[in-house]
Amino acid sequence: MAIRILITGGTFDKEYDELHGTLYFKDTHLPEMLTLGRCRLEVQIRTVMMVDSLDMTGEDRDLVLEQCRKSPENQIVVTHGTDTMVETAQLLGRSIRDKTIVLTGAMVPYAFGSSDGLFNLGSALSFAQTLPPGTYIAMNGRCFRWDNVRKNRELGIFETMESQG
Amino acid sequence: MAIRILITGGTFDKEYDELHGTLYFKDTHLPEMLTLGRCRLEVQIRTVMMVDSLDMTGEDRDLVLEQCRKSPENQIVVTHGTDTMVETAQLLGRSIRDKTIVLTGAMVPYAFGSSDGLFNLGSALSFAQTLPPGTYIAMNGRCFRWDNVRKNRELGIFETMESQG
Amino acid sequence: MAIRILITGGTFDKEYDELHGTLYFKDTHLPEMLTLGRCRLEVQIRTVMMVDSLDMTGEDRDLVLEQCRKSPENQIVVTHGTDTMVETAQLLGRSIRDKTIVLTGAMVPYAFGSSDGLFNLGSALSFAQTLPPGTYIAMNGRCFRWDNVRKNRELGIFETMESQG
Amino acid sequence: MAIRILITGGTFDKEYDELHGTLYFKDTHLPEMLTLGRCRLEVQIRTVMMVDSLDMTGEDRDLVLEQCRKSPENQIVVTHGTDTMVETAQLLGRSIRDKTIVLTGAMVPYAFGSSDGLFNLGSALSFAQTLPPGTYIAMNGRCFRWDNVRKNRELGIFETMESQG
Repeated sequence: MAIRILITGGTFDKEYDELHGTLYFKDTHLPEMLTLGRCRLEVQIRTVMMVDSLDMTGEDRDLVLEQCRKSPENQIVVTHGTDTMVETAQLLGRSIRDKTIVLTGAMVPYAFGSSDGLFNLGSALSFAQTLPPGTYIAMNGRCFRWDNVRKNRELGIFETMESQG
Repeated sequence: MAIRILITGGTFDKEYDELHGTLYFKDTHLPEMLTLGRCRLEVQIRTVMMVDSLDMTGEDRDLVLEQCRKSPENQIVVTHGTDTMVETAQLLGRSIRDKTIVLTGAMVPYAFGSSDGLFNLGSALSFAQTLPPGTYIAMNGRCFRWDNVRKNRELGIFETMESQG
Repeated sequence: MAIRILITGGTFDKEYDELHGTLYFKDTHLPEMLTLGRCRLEVQIRTVMMVDSLDMTGEDRDLVLEQCRKSPENQIVVTHGTDTMVETAQLLGRSIRDKTIVLTGAMVPYAFGSSDGLFNLGSALSFAQTLPPGTYIAMNGRCFRWDNVRKNRELGIFETMESQG
Repeated sequence: MAIRILITGGTFDKEYDELHGTLYFKDTHLPEMLTLGRCRLEVQIRTVMMVDSLDMTGEDRDLVLEQCRKSPENQIVVTHGTDTMVETAQLLGRSIRDKTIVLTGAMVPYAFGSSDGLFNLGSALSFAQTLPPGTYIAMNGRCFRWDNVRKNRELGIFETMESQG
């Protein structure tokens, strides 16, 4: 029972370009993070894109959907920028009913040391193994259904719709 | 729906004593790890002991059992040294049937940078929220039932009984 | 024999703003770095400004010069962004002859883990204690006189004028 | 003008053995540390031994002396455990007069994140480039002559003989 990991970029995988003092994408840190976590799950990793989720287009989102549809594995973790994670979750949640899809990301790049990425990855992989089919967001140690979640941009956290910001 | 976190020490919380060049226990790193993980779960943390699990006595284990029994929360994460984690899991698994108890630990102290601790904590908290009552071990990204798990000391990983070492 | 440390910002002290995904300045990391280095030198730390050295104006540079002039300590370390470090070194070098001034910085923010900052700080403090009066740049483990140094922007290193890029 | 770096082990290079929960030596971290420091000095690195300095014998010390004598480079940095660093410094200081030898080490293993190693390495390399021939210890940001230094074991710092512990 393998888990598919689809990588789309996001803060998770950003790095510091020391020649220009800017943030950019190079390679994904996922394999390194799984090694650090001494993870022994059977995983299939596929980099779908490496973008800031604010730059993600409708076409990009369709590509993620397509990859989830085609995945032979029924448990899928999608790493994603937090800014439009809810939007992608809604597309996946409305379109796919027979797989457990868990989106996760990070508030701080994994490479920066103070990142929540490793915690979130451990969390997402566990939710993917135990939750019934559906699309979820795993952030802040919690699990949200795709149709009841929003990002609170002031606090930098995810919450249910009923929560007051 | 709060989660109780019981701390017993283990590699998780070991630190380097720079005056003597040895490993020792000071305070738990749990609150710091939850902050790093931007965890927004309601948690009740209680330090039950701070010991190397090789030094854990039968009495110590009874204390952990007692704390699980008394816990008003039905979802419990126990941080524990990996060497005798299976033993404690067996005691809890045989004795408590109405709560979801997840033991986890680390192969490398959290304070040393290359630790699997943060990954395991994210993993354990997620399993505690989603698994049915029973006692489990969350290590290596996987979840093991208390009555079908052993530590493979050569590889430093946890596996089911059927696995060959 | 105390050493004065003047802080002007630069990559050294940049942090990641997780709410906006940008780099910014908050507080200096110098005290934390000195603690990490178990530094027992008597130091006087003063934050003169917290700016990206690309944004440093002529007035800003005059302020640094003024602070060096007024310093009762004759050994001074100036933390500075690398982009215009040479310019500030030239101003100080031409203007002050009776003090040992060492400018240093970092290619990667100290807070990001993979920083050269701690190495450079150790280096700069040592050069400040041992070099004759004059203005120097301490980067890449080396020491450059203010009138024979340039930043090679393609390689992200400092070199003497004779070096070919 | 190259600098010779002689490696003898010490806390600097200790690692955590996650299978046995003990500290041990594998490979030196020096090349990795020089890369992190973006060091552009010409260096010749030679591992002489990898031992805890408490286990260093008279023969071991003679070997270090021999390596310093034979070194074609006149500027030498020796990484060394802190516990008997002073002893080795005394042997080198009494025996070699025409080279600048700087011993340094770390209170916490480099691999553990909270190490002073990178700071000390930057410091030692700078002292080696600027101090007159003689043997020195570079620790705590300071530089000590071989014949006026001791390790204060209560505080875990180096100090001159006159200092009171």
